[in-house]
Amino acid sequence: MLPGRVLSIQSHVTFGYVGGKAATLPLQLLGWDVDVVNTVNFSNHSGYHRFGGVKAKAHELTEIFSAMEANGFLRPSRLLTGFIPGAESLLVVSDVAAKLLEEYPQLIWLLDPVIGDAGKVYVAADVIPVYRSMLPKATIITPNWFEVEVLTDTKIEDPTSLRKALKILHTTYMVPNVVVSSIPVKPWLVEFMPSDIRLRADEGEDALLCLASSRTEGADSTAPSRVHAACVPLVPGYFSGVGDLFSALVLGHFDPAPGAPTSPGSPVSRAVSFALTKTHAILLKTAEYASSLPEDERYPTDDDRDAEDPGRRIRRMRGRELRLVQGQDILRGTGIGELRTMTEWVDFWA
Amino acid sequence: MLPGRVLSIQSHVTFGYVGGKAATLPLQLLGWDVDVVNTVNFSNHSGYHRFGGVKAKAHELTEIFSAMEANGFLRPSRLLTGFIPGAESLLVVSDVAAKLLEEYPQLIWLLDPVIGDAGKVYVAADVIPVYRSMLPKATIITPNWFEVEVLTDTKIEDPTSLRKALKILHTTYMVPNVVVSSIPVKPWLVEFMPSDIRLRADEGEDALLCLASSRTEGADSTAPSRVHAACVPLVPGYFSGVGDLFSALVLGHFDPAPGAPTSPGSPVSRAVSFALTKTHAILLKTAEYASSLPEDERYPTDDDRDAEDPGRRIRRMRGRELRLVQGQDILRGTGIGELRTMTEWVDFWA
Repeated sequence: MLPGRVLSIQSHVTFGYVGGKAATLPLQLLGWDVDVVNTVNFSNHSGYHRFGGVKAKAHELTEIFSAMEANGFLRPSRLLTGFIPGAESLLVVSDVAAKLLEEYPQLIWLLDPVIGDAGKVYVAADVIPVYRSMLPKATIITPNWFEVEVLTDTKIEDPTSLRKALKILHTTYMVPNVVVSSIPVKPWLVEFMPSDIRLRADEGEDALLCLASSRTEGADSTAPSRVHAACVPLVPGYFSGVGDLFSALVLGHFDPAPGAPTSPGSPVSRAVSFALTKTHAILLKTAEYASSLPEDERYPTDDDRDAEDPGRRIRRMRGRELRLVQGQDILRGTGIGELRTMTEWVDFWA
Repeated sequence: MLPGRVLSIQSHVTFGYVGGKAATLPLQLLGWDVDVVNTVNFSNHSGYHRFGGVKAKAHELTEIFSAMEANGFLRPSRLLTGFIPGAESLLVVSDVAAKLLEEYPQLIWLLDPVIGDAGKVYVAADVIPVYRSMLPKATIITPNWFEVEVLTDTKIEDPTSLRKALKILHTTYMVPNVVVSSIPVKPWLVEFMPSDIRLRADEGEDALLCLASSRTEGADSTAPSRVHAACVPLVPGYFSGVGDLFSALVLGHFDPAPGAPTSPGSPVSRAVSFALTKTHAILLKTAEYASSLPEDERYPTDDDRDAEDPGRRIRRMRGRELRLVQGQDILRGTGIGELRTMTEWVDFWA
């Protein structure tokens, strides 16, 4: 293995920060060499509704991986996989991951199963079974709430269904570490959450929950997992690339060593604490910038008015591109203030 | 114009640091948002002899630029163009540059006319006239010694031919700023150089010369240019991506304001002083790393033995990939020590 290298396989956009553009700089700032494979080359992310460029064909990805293997470059210590359009390309990546793991079982793979968000699937339907087949080999997965529902075929609407979904991921799909960020805190969830996980009173009412669930090392896969959680204040407005940034930071900060007996949390919860703190700080910085723009670039989200004037959405979204370059001190960790440490949710399975 | 944005159009490699991979991180560390257009998507640079991936087709580049324009994203304050394979793609980029300059005459364009090196042309012949047609619109060009010879059709072998080549670039091709780095210092050049430009005695004998020649603002294009120069110690061995890093740093540091009356040099010579100092420091760091590798990864360059064992070249070159991630303090400027300030070559035209 080549130490300190992340092989990152995801989308590329020229303008703005999603996919690889949201992941690469943060990882580099943390000291990782990033081997970047672009699964698409687009002008900008598709949320702008108008974009140009092409997807990499499956055989083109194969050619890149084959040449890397022949040259002895396919030996990363970590693997980060994000948006990969189409089942054929995803199968190529799945094969690469399997081959890497066969040669280097200690490879750490963060798999972000990019399927959709907020009730909408935005990949082809045949991608979903491929993701399911990939899950058992990943070290950490970072689905959003909706992706957990799709992958486990479970509508999550109460503690029982949430426990069931996590159990399916840990037991049926054998995933050691599941991290779900940006969970909208519905009333049943507020009631379910222990009070020490809720927002501080001075942080407002609107929160997003982040959960990290880890199978106990060495224990039977059906044993209850260890769950950590934290809430962050909701930053109003829609921002793209947040999940991609978060996943990169989780992988970049993850240290599989068990840590000192006194260090709080689990290896994953410690990484997530950093990722959550930094992602939230970048979002605040981005929102602050967006609110400083001229009025016609900071319209509130309004689908009806966007439909009348497509430029309206574009101007708004442009102002909400993540401020990664301007937030380098945050990403490096010197400008984040107090760490949002995840708390163990002791009674989660009770 | 969107301030603080560089549109960078050059090659992408998954593994290693050439083209966009050598340019993007340094620019980001200097605070620039970089809009990255990938003219190729390769596994690694072609110097390894074995590589996989595809070149972007000209129409694919057009689609990216068209979507960016339609969305109002094609408004960078700076343009950086590097390796663009094929005349058809180069014409697309030339059109984009022309359109940008028409709308924003204050655009600063650094054009690196990637044609070849050390006597070898590594682009198609029809690319050369396209580069010649692009020169008059660039703000700064960064050809290597061989590219100066090709572009001006002048064999440079004495002060007269060197003056002639620079005059052709400034007068025939109307280039305001010509920067030529990594010039091998032949005996006639040692004799021609003023002594205050040579290496310090403690820096050894083997030097590379860097020249920056700027037309005087407002003067007739046939008036003699202002020439600045500096020598840096040669770092033995072959390293890829050095020119791409250097050009990105020149553009990133360039401040077109004339500066305080007391500030030494010209806007370009000041930028080149930073670029030269940082590039040299990165090379030293890379060479130090390469020399720390196991013996079979630090063979000296030897084409005959490489031909017998292709893995030999690959292992050597891999160890000589630029240490950009590890040299972030250098690129940010905190870890460079004393600046190598360019000296004015007062008698250049005498």
